[in-house]
Amino acid sequence: MSQDSPDTRPSATPASRVRVRYADTDQMGVTYYANYLVWFEVGRTDWLRHHGWSYREMERDGIRLPVIEAFCRYLAPALYDDELEVHTRATLVTPARVRLDYEIRVSASGTTAATGYTTHAALGTSGKPCRLPDRVRLVMQPAPPGALTGARRGARQPGSTAVRP
Amino acid sequence: MSQDSPDTRPSATPASRVRVRYADTDQMGVTYYANYLVWFEVGRTDWLRHHGWSYREMERDGIRLPVIEAFCRYLAPALYDDELEVHTRATLVTPARVRLDYEIRVSASGTTAATGYTTHAALGTSGKPCRLPDRVRLVMQPAPPGALTGARRGARQPGSTAVRP
Amino acid sequence: MSQDSPDTRPSATPASRVRVRYADTDQMGVTYYANYLVWFEVGRTDWLRHHGWSYREMERDGIRLPVIEAFCRYLAPALYDDELEVHTRATLVTPARVRLDYEIRVSASGTTAATGYTTHAALGTSGKPCRLPDRVRLVMQPAPPGALTGARRGARQPGSTAVRP
Amino acid sequence: MSQDSPDTRPSATPASRVRVRYADTDQMGVTYYANYLVWFEVGRTDWLRHHGWSYREMERDGIRLPVIEAFCRYLAPALYDDELEVHTRATLVTPARVRLDYEIRVSASGTTAATGYTTHAALGTSGKPCRLPDRVRLVMQPAPPGALTGARRGARQPGSTAVRP
Repeated sequence: MSQDSPDTRPSATPASRVRVRYADTDQMGVTYYANYLVWFEVGRTDWLRHHGWSYREMERDGIRLPVIEAFCRYLAPALYDDELEVHTRATLVTPARVRLDYEIRVSASGTTAATGYTTHAALGTSGKPCRLPDRVRLVMQPAPPGALTGARRGARQPGSTAVRP
Repeated sequence: MSQDSPDTRPSATPASRVRVRYADTDQMGVTYYANYLVWFEVGRTDWLRHHGWSYREMERDGIRLPVIEAFCRYLAPALYDDELEVHTRATLVTPARVRLDYEIRVSASGTTAATGYTTHAALGTSGKPCRLPDRVRLVMQPAPPGALTGARRGARQPGSTAVRP
Repeated sequence: MSQDSPDTRPSATPASRVRVRYADTDQMGVTYYANYLVWFEVGRTDWLRHHGWSYREMERDGIRLPVIEAFCRYLAPALYDDELEVHTRATLVTPARVRLDYEIRVSASGTTAATGYTTHAALGTSGKPCRLPDRVRLVMQPAPPGALTGARRGARQPGSTAVRP
Repeated sequence: MSQDSPDTRPSATPASRVRVRYADTDQMGVTYYANYLVWFEVGRTDWLRHHGWSYREMERDGIRLPVIEAFCRYLAPALYDDELEVHTRATLVTPARVRLDYEIRVSASGTTAATGYTTHAALGTSGKPCRLPDRVRLVMQPAPPGALTGARRGARQPGSTAVRP
């Protein structure tokens, strides 16, 4: 996020809310680690919907956003029946590549359970990389200065994934 | 199964083997109940493959077998790291409908963890019901006398689902 | 449900709402069949919570309700991003055994996607069958006349699973 | 891996084999991205078992290895019914922290579908960090020179996750 121009958009995107299901737990008594990636999906789906274009419509319009990288840092266990908030923020890394950052918090305590990100390529009907449509790009945060020098920028800094709306 | 002509084919179909993953467990310390249906899928996929036609090929040939009913009875918990055997038997209910019966056993003890069945409709490329191809029908167990009077026969007797090869 | 005394309680239990996630779909373009059982879990969890005792609290109080049977009939596909309603109704089969019936409807169309049920044993801290606590039993529908002659009554009539609040 | 002393142990650990289930796919016709993390679990479980101590036994002995970080890079889609190999390599990052690197290949083509890693903390019975038992530490690859200066070393280089036995 640019330090000069504080971003106010993330606070305008309401957090997604999910509740930990029994199906999500494992015998350690906490959420199985792969399931956080499903909640990330909920977060980005709601983010898109909030900005006026559901992923379902996007697919119908011939654009897909397959995940090319995913990262998650587990900070505190999410327990059965906990209500969680998924905070999501989107950054345009290149015209054909986006990164979404997530923070999952336990609603009752405010504790951050996990942070992470996913990087996505935009693919058109032919399966070839394509530019993201303007209506999506315009609501995304611009990548920070220097970020466009390499598509892998995000991957080099998995530590900076916290979303602080 | 016809009582008059004991069927010997199931013993010719080797059981599938799966191992309980941590992902399969829940905080009760046992396998979450929906995951048995995934193992049923493994059982029927291997059953088809054993009979010379993988489900992948079947889909390419324009035939799909969506599940229209599923039943599972849970008899003993399947625990993390247990190796399980999935025994599968197929019955042709009608020319366009098949039923697969499953028994899941813990390999080490021979204990039956669960029994169940799935009923499937055969759909062609148009999405319309179609006859199952001969090469699949011929290896299936004929439905028992009286079974063809109603497509719902299986559903009325979920208690008789044990597969005893 | 008794035909003589129309039951009005189910209508008092609000339906659970879930949205079909990308994770729920399979390559047939519809929800994978095992995932309906996860939505059944959401339905019964909310049913319990609505009646003042969350399953989390119940577990803390030493009572568990493992699934001993599950059945699902698939009537119409639930598609990605569909919002669904899970309608749930509970019946006391025996003092130590309950059955929950579910109907999953697509919110936008009202179409019934699936119906089904799960049967549960009540287990106490020792892992032995126990009576369900009064506060749960009292809000459950009594089993219909004749139903208590066998614990397997539900299993013999999987066709009658529709929940019609 | 130390460049001076080429490591030959990974080749001694056989790859795990998994087959892509219908349950693993999504409506894009490929494996849903969270499921690769389940295959990582299969890889590390087999790695431990191969070295004489199953994770089940480890848990019984009071040691758990919760995941504190996970990363996956998706390179080529894993398709329904593909047989995959999960190659796993373990590195001791600190006496109480291990990192496992994975490479998932499509058996038929040898194509790398994904690479990734997980970082784990070793926790004792009290839930406090503990040293990994010697029998596990001794079979692990030593961390490369300089790696022990920070526990986050792995996280800073998610690009170098390919396992090349």
